[in-house]
Amino acid sequence: MATPVLPRSVQRLIDEFARLPGIGPKSASRLTFYLLRATDNQALDLSVALQELKERTRLCSVCFNITEDDPCPICEDEARDAHLVCVVEEPLDVLAIERSRAYGGRYHVLHGAISPVEGIGPEDLRVTELVQRVAQGQFTEIILATNPTLEGESTALYLQRRLAEYGVRMTRLARGLPVGGDLEYTDEITLGRALEGRQEV
Amino acid sequence: MATPVLPRSVQRLIDEFARLPGIGPKSASRLTFYLLRATDNQALDLSVALQELKERTRLCSVCFNITEDDPCPICEDEARDAHLVCVVEEPLDVLAIERSRAYGGRYHVLHGAISPVEGIGPEDLRVTELVQRVAQGQFTEIILATNPTLEGESTALYLQRRLAEYGVRMTRLARGLPVGGDLEYTDEITLGRALEGRQEV
Repeated sequence: MATPVLPRSVQRLIDEFARLPGIGPKSASRLTFYLLRATDNQALDLSVALQELKERTRLCSVCFNITEDDPCPICEDEARDAHLVCVVEEPLDVLAIERSRAYGGRYHVLHGAISPVEGIGPEDLRVTELVQRVAQGQFTEIILATNPTLEGESTALYLQRRLAEYGVRMTRLARGLPVGGDLEYTDEITLGRALEGRQEV
Repeated sequence: MATPVLPRSVQRLIDEFARLPGIGPKSASRLTFYLLRATDNQALDLSVALQELKERTRLCSVCFNITEDDPCPICEDEARDAHLVCVVEEPLDVLAIERSRAYGGRYHVLHGAISPVEGIGPEDLRVTELVQRVAQGQFTEIILATNPTLEGESTALYLQRRLAEYGVRMTRLARGLPVGGDLEYTDEITLGRALEGRQEV
C-alpha cells in the first residue's frame, strides 16, 4: 500500500493549481482530473494562454495599467478627456470603472495602497509617476478612486496632501447605499455616509 | 468609451480559466490578475505542468487508471493481492480508496457510470475490458465500488448480471452512517440503509 498513487505529472499540476488563491487541494485535484478527461486542446490552450500572458503584457509607461501596446489604448485614445485622471489601486479597478460606462477620462494605476501593517509605503506604489504627471499641468481634476477601506482612505489622504501644491481639483467617489441594496441590511458606517452625503431631490 | 479595456492575452487567459468547472468569470479575472502580479515563474510553472500532463500521462492498458508508465505501478506491484479487483468509476476514486489504506488489491477504472439520461451505456465504459480480465480467472472477489448514486447502483447491477457466469464472489461497499456524522442530520435513505445493514456487536 506504499505504491505511489499519482503519476508525478498529475501531482505536479495539482500542486500548481493549489498555489492559486481560492483553490484548495480538493479543487486542484478536480481541475486536474477534469483536464485529464477533457480534449487535449483545453489543457494545451490554457498552457499557451499562461505562457503568452507574461510574454505579451507589460505596464503602460504612462498610466501603469496592464497593456500589450505602450502607451496603452486608453492613454492613446484621443476621444477620451485628457484633463481628467482617475487614480486607482489595481488594473482590475480600471476594468470595473470602464464597465460602468460612466467615465471617459484617463487613469493612473498605483499598484497597491499604503498599508503600514503590510509594510507598503508610498515608495512601493506608482506615486512619484503620478506626481510627475500632475506636475505637467494637463489635469483639471484628479479623481482619487482608491477603495473605501482603511488602506484606500489613507492612500487618498496621502495623495491629497502630496498633490495639494498643484492646485488641481481633487475628488473621491461618492459613498452611499449600493443600488439595489436594502436599507435594513446596510451596515451603519455606509448608512452614516449615505446620510452625510444626502442630496436635494 | 468603446476603448478595448483588456489586452487580448489577458482576456484570453480569463476565458480559458472560466472554461474550467467551478470557476466563474469573476474568479477567472482574479486568477489572471493574480498571475500578472506574481513572479514570472508561477504562470510559467503552471503552463509547463499543463503541457506535461497530457504529454506524459496515458491510461494503464490493464486497469485503465491514469499513469505515466504502462502497466501502472499498482498493476505492477507484486506485493498487492492479484486475486482482488476493485471496480471504480473514476481515477479519483482509486485515489480516495488508496488514501483509506484499507485495500491492497488491484483496480479497474470504468471511466464513468451507466446513465440512460446522459446517453452513456456499457459500451462507453471499460466494461468489455473488465469482462476479459474476469474471464482470465485470476480474481476470487470483485468489489463493485461504483458510487452510491442511481447511476452507480445501475452500473453495479449491470456488472453483477454481466459477470455472474464466471462464478466469482461480488461485493458492494457498505452503506451506513459516515464516521463522525450525526444521526440527527443523516438523510432518511442513508439511515434506512444503516438500519438494514446493522451489525452484531
